Amino acid sequence: MTSTLRVALVGHAFMGRAHAHAWRTAPRFFDLPLDPELTVVVGRSPDRAAAAAAELGAAEWSDDWRAVVARPDIDLVDVCAPGDIHADVAIAALRAGKHVLCEKPLARTVAEAERMAQAARAAPVGTRAMCGFSYRRTPALAYARRLVEDGRIGTVRHVRAQYLQDWLSDPDAPLTWRLDKEIAGSGALGDIGAHSVDTAQWLVGEPIEAVSAQLRTFVGSRPVLAEQRGLGGRADTGAERGPVTVDDAVAFTASFGSGALGVFEATRFALGRRNANRIEVNGDRGSIAFDFERMNELELYDASDADGVQGFRRIQVTEPVHPYTGNWWPAGHGLGYEHVFTHQVVDLVTAIAEGRQPSPGFDEALGVQRVLDAVERSAASESILTPVDGAS
Amino acid sequence: MTSTLRVALVGHAFMGRAHAHAWRTAPRFFDLPLDPELTVVVGRSPDRAAAAAAELGAAEWSDDWRAVVARPDIDLVDVCAPGDIHADVAIAALRAGKHVLCEKPLARTVAEAERMAQAARAAPVGTRAMCGFSYRRTPALAYARRLVEDGRIGTVRHVRAQYLQDWLSDPDAPLTWRLDKEIAGSGALGDIGAHSVDTAQWLVGEPIEAVSAQLRTFVGSRPVLAEQRGLGGRADTGAERGPVTVDDAVAFTASFGSGALGVFEATRFALGRRNANRIEVNGDRGSIAFDFERMNELELYDASDADGVQGFRRIQVTEPVHPYTGNWWPAGHGLGYEHVFTHQVVDLVTAIAEGRQPSPGFDEALGVQRVLDAVERSAASESILTPVDGAS
Amino acid sequence: MTSTLRVALVGHAFMGRAHAHAWRTAPRFFDLPLDPELTVVVGRSPDRAAAAAAELGAAEWSDDWRAVVARPDIDLVDVCAPGDIHADVAIAALRAGKHVLCEKPLARTVAEAERMAQAARAAPVGTRAMCGFSYRRTPALAYARRLVEDGRIGTVRHVRAQYLQDWLSDPDAPLTWRLDKEIAGSGALGDIGAHSVDTAQWLVGEPIEAVSAQLRTFVGSRPVLAEQRGLGGRADTGAERGPVTVDDAVAFTASFGSGALGVFEATRFALGRRNANRIEVNGDRGSIAFDFERMNELELYDASDADGVQGFRRIQVTEPVHPYTGNWWPAGHGLGYEHVFTHQVVDLVTAIAEGRQPSPGFDEALGVQRVLDAVERSAASESILTPVDGAS
Amino acid sequence: MTSTLRVALVGHAFMGRAHAHAWRTAPRFFDLPLDPELTVVVGRSPDRAAAAAAELGAAEWSDDWRAVVARPDIDLVDVCAPGDIHADVAIAALRAGKHVLCEKPLARTVAEAERMAQAARAAPVGTRAMCGFSYRRTPALAYARRLVEDGRIGTVRHVRAQYLQDWLSDPDAPLTWRLDKEIAGSGALGDIGAHSVDTAQWLVGEPIEAVSAQLRTFVGSRPVLAEQRGLGGRADTGAERGPVTVDDAVAFTASFGSGALGVFEATRFALGRRNANRIEVNGDRGSIAFDFERMNELELYDASDADGVQGFRRIQVTEPVHPYTGNWWPAGHGLGYEHVFTHQVVDLVTAIAEGRQPSPGFDEALGVQRVLDAVERSAASESILTPVDGAS
Repeated sequence: MTSTLRVALVGHAFMGRAHAHAWRTAPRFFDLPLDPELTVVVGRSPDRAAAAAAELGAAEWSDDWRAVVARPDIDLVDVCAPGDIHADVAIAALRAGKHVLCEKPLARTVAEAERMAQAARAAPVGTRAMCGFSYRRTPALAYARRLVEDGRIGTVRHVRAQYLQDWLSDPDAPLTWRLDKEIAGSGALGDIGAHSVDTAQWLVGEPIEAVSAQLRTFVGSRPVLAEQRGLGGRADTGAERGPVTVDDAVAFTASFGSGALGVFEATRFALGRRNANRIEVNGDRGSIAFDFERMNELELYDASDADGVQGFRRIQVTEPVHPYTGNWWPAGHGLGYEHVFTHQVVDLVTAIAEGRQPSPGFDEALGVQRVLDAVERSAASESILTPVDGAS
Repeated sequence: MTSTLRVALVGHAFMGRAHAHAWRTAPRFFDLPLDPELTVVVGRSPDRAAAAAAELGAAEWSDDWRAVVARPDIDLVDVCAPGDIHADVAIAALRAGKHVLCEKPLARTVAEAERMAQAARAAPVGTRAMCGFSYRRTPALAYARRLVEDGRIGTVRHVRAQYLQDWLSDPDAPLTWRLDKEIAGSGALGDIGAHSVDTAQWLVGEPIEAVSAQLRTFVGSRPVLAEQRGLGGRADTGAERGPVTVDDAVAFTASFGSGALGVFEATRFALGRRNANRIEVNGDRGSIAFDFERMNELELYDASDADGVQGFRRIQVTEPVHPYTGNWWPAGHGLGYEHVFTHQVVDLVTAIAEGRQPSPGFDEALGVQRVLDAVERSAASESILTPVDGAS
Repeated sequence: MTSTLRVALVGHAFMGRAHAHAWRTAPRFFDLPLDPELTVVVGRSPDRAAAAAAELGAAEWSDDWRAVVARPDIDLVDVCAPGDIHADVAIAALRAGKHVLCEKPLARTVAEAERMAQAARAAPVGTRAMCGFSYRRTPALAYARRLVEDGRIGTVRHVRAQYLQDWLSDPDAPLTWRLDKEIAGSGALGDIGAHSVDTAQWLVGEPIEAVSAQLRTFVGSRPVLAEQRGLGGRADTGAERGPVTVDDAVAFTASFGSGALGVFEATRFALGRRNANRIEVNGDRGSIAFDFERMNELELYDASDADGVQGFRRIQVTEPVHPYTGNWWPAGHGLGYEHVFTHQVVDLVTAIAEGRQPSPGFDEALGVQRVLDAVERSAASESILTPVDGAS
Repeated sequence: MTSTLRVALVGHAFMGRAHAHAWRTAPRFFDLPLDPELTVVVGRSPDRAAAAAAELGAAEWSDDWRAVVARPDIDLVDVCAPGDIHADVAIAALRAGKHVLCEKPLARTVAEAERMAQAARAAPVGTRAMCGFSYRRTPALAYARRLVEDGRIGTVRHVRAQYLQDWLSDPDAPLTWRLDKEIAGSGALGDIGAHSVDTAQWLVGEPIEAVSAQLRTFVGSRPVLAEQRGLGGRADTGAERGPVTVDDAVAFTASFGSGALGVFEATRFALGRRNANRIEVNGDRGSIAFDFERMNELELYDASDADGVQGFRRIQVTEPVHPYTGNWWPAGHGLGYEHVFTHQVVDLVTAIAEGRQPSPGFDEALGVQRVLDAVERSAASESILTPVDGAS
């Protein structure tokens, strides 16, 4: 008889819906050692929290996260709210001995992230904390990680990671919380660039040691909406405009511990790229390439292939031998975005039941935060750019 | 207060799992007029039916479909069992006034399909019957249909549809029920070619009037397994072999009512093609192209684009404006195979609640069956092939 | 000291220009055993023949092919004129002991092709005749042939070949000689489908034994132009219209000697497909796929690749190890359309010097013609199509 | 009657062959105002220069470039030799009143480039100097330039350019002159990165004003060959090794005059990428993307397309309306690498005849050199990298 794992979901917008689906679906396709139950949905507005609980299939709702975190029957707190309450909720939950799954980026600042990581270390024995760098659970990327670990591409020389979106290209796209530094911490950097940083460090198995960065804010003010939800939309004509206080785009070069050369770019202004979370890694024995817009595919180049038949292979990462996919559908019947969250639940629940630390823990997420911080410090530095002589 | 729609699921293998997920998930992402509940799972083996009910989240199980179909509390019977019991279950359910969702191909023969269509017509008023040509609910194909209807590609001249898989290429892949004519009716033709026929007729809005076909069976016998499940696998060495009694592959040309020229091919022997369900349609104003291996994309060529900038557009069919996708995730965050079943549930439940006939009904599915039948008759005909003079 | 090979070029439109470039370029990149010289350009109109000779770099021009063919100093006659004079020129040249390179399709009818093949067999010892199925000389296809010969994809089960163009989709595209049965013999069938037939038979190494075909003529009349050149263009408004007497499109299934199942389609009405000369072959050990729109690439699937890393490889056929490419540029620096003609010259000149029959000779081209003939006879047959019951 | 333009070709390796083909071919496909004649081929070794002249179709050869440059009958000097003699040859030729076409990068240093640009400015009236940034003459890129100029993608925000090759990935690839700073000036930076810099500045129409760069040399020493030619090859085992004195790879971010954010990367260690010269530009109205490995294609995203049908278009840049292509073959019949050199000749000869300065002139090439110099200075600076705190 499997024990129940009672989950409190804090936040019920885009991310909350994705997490709720994962809690609901994981036990239907995977043989889990614990039986997750979405017990309560927490939101700021009672009305919307109640509606979300009904929609997402939770028995209860609440508008008081502090009360929920204190409930003895709750086993795990899943933090999907905006970044400004990550630290408060996660630390309180950890102190109360609840497992925590916290959305990324872990925090708005390194200081906040350090407090959270410290809370994770100080939590009662067996209490687990994990950060939601969910893209690691894309089968193609999880398989790429396995190939790199197995030495299939050899020693890594190049990492090029781009996370390209375009939903802010329109200057009249509304001013959401993701554009407010007080709430989000940063813009494209933390929202999507953080995924690239995590993926790169994890895939290569080496930390980024130094960076050189530029940030841009292309659109300085945007219309304020009475109510905000989702990523896109267009404000009414004549709406009041408020300031964008985060970066719209970031580009940086990076040096890995191993000497590998990294190039990173994150933007929400690359028209036509809806969710191009891409990474290519070149080693001395082969290369891998991935684009989330074709998430069921991984490209592999193996330099040990015979002369004449060398070339990037388009692997459909949908076989039983691939990570996670054997529990779903036959080969070639691809998965979608939400599956990465289901896999995240599977890995987290399994780690909890087996008494292991799930990855990425808060210390790993703190490592990502430190890279984001170095990027911001670099971009703020006067000396970063070398002028081209004669350019006016 | 929404009424409940109680569902009995007959069959719990690959298709049953996909349908169960759809019944469970549809109300979480779509605002349905009825609230579906997976009430009972029916299977031949009590042990496996019980295990499936637990896994799929149904309260009850049964090994007696006749008893279940007779239960007054069941509103809808979802037929996911092999083809040899489609007719019996569906007809009994319709007579009992239950809505029916029946997997494709509707039947093993035209005669069977006719009986089923007749039962659907004779069912109590308001009883709905639908056939599971689920690929229609792929957002990219549903959107393609809308473009064709809107005249975007003009008058159709060419239809080329291929459904290419490779899971039978290995001669030691086991002899499953899908290779037994008594159970499956036909092989690649009915299993996957039927999807192409349905998609083509629905997309173009014209019936196929005549065909010219060849069938092939490349591997005549295969190892018999004690127990069979899933699509793939490899039998033990030395297993007894039994005869394959269906086609491994089919190719045919087709003439549409409008004069459009069709080319169809279905095979499970195209090595490297895992689930390449492809269709391209060329009209006199443009073209569309689709491949299920990249199910979130639709290619559109619009001949009215200005000279110089003409070319196939890779549309990511993940926008709010596209069919179904607005209820899921932001643009570029793709869907997977199982979503087409969720959309099928949405459309069926909505039609039931609104008192409309869902599409495809059994009469439409009978139309597909008639094409399959013409293909088999054509392939059996001596006169179909014109010899090349001088070829030995 | 290399001997000179004096070439007479009969025809100087699209094909003539391509051939002239090849004669000029081959000795600059390949070490040829004979030194080709474009001696004379022959055309119907003296003015245009003279201009063409100047443009193409020939010292002389003529409007009398009979006189040219009789010249003792001419070694080779290159027939690039429309199909209605192929037989006359080629037979006269062969009788005069000239080598012949004749554009495809070899003839308008099997009878004509037989006379030409007979003339080739009866020509003076050492006189060579070759037909210009130039696509064989695409490095990617020549390499594919080598892979098939080496058993890399095993026993062939499926051949699917499409040759899709769109330059006739507009009903006001002019009536050129390619649309006149008296001159061209057939339409899409002979013009582009012939390439697919030749490529398929050569690649697989098996003849097509029987076919089942449909033809279509979508646009029955077109504007007549005072002067016609090139493939495209648009006539003046109000131009007189004349009848199209050939097929606009063809589709047929084919049975190869080995039992392999073929599907062929050729059309000039597939909007958006400019020159999609495609072929895919599935064997029991692997598959190859090619599209001339990406002529420097070949896709290979090798079923012996390890589980997990199986997938189509995109081979850039530009390495020294690949056919022809080592004589050109570094890897990844692709070739273009015209190179296949240069390679054709290289192979022809080498065969002549070495006293070997170049391939395809006229007998092989006659074999293609017989397939085209069977296609036309099949399409004309009443019994080819099996009606779908109940379709109106 | 067209005047002859007598050309002296200095250097006859890879680049020399490409240029010779262009001089030979341009007048056959384009109506040129001057008639180019490859008069003399110049090389260091008399034997090889003589052989090259025969192979490339020049009447004469020489091993003394100074004597050739002084010949009164030479009109144009085409400098294809390694970088260490660019300045000497080009300056001498310009002083002698010869037009000069000089391969890229113009020089090894800014100082050298300045002397060359000065010589071009000081040359006799009507003497033209052009630098061989040949990729500008790729039809797809030339068309992209036109689209940008026409405002089709609006104000540029992002430029990402990668030039990825892999021919040095093998540590036993030989030590050619391209790896010797004394001769080549720099490595990947000048050899291929220079193309990206030129393409980006020309395409966007804005100069790069500042950069932040990292360089890498992955393989410090390589086998010395007795004789070197071509790009690849593998040395004999046991060959003596010499030092690589240039960069193997470079990555930098850039700031354009307009504020656009650039990301550049050039390497010869990206396994599987043979000649991936790529650029993507995102504006506020659309985007363009290009990869030379598919040189006949341009991708365009137009944000003004209607909702629902937005997506990158794959334009086959082979239509009469596209730059250069109307002089070649029908649509879809692609061009190859060498065509860009033919187009370069066309543009240069036309500019000379029309008394215009061809682009890029030496001043533009000096601008590229200044960017390369800033990259090298930036990479040499201590302060460029910001350490990640806590990374070891």
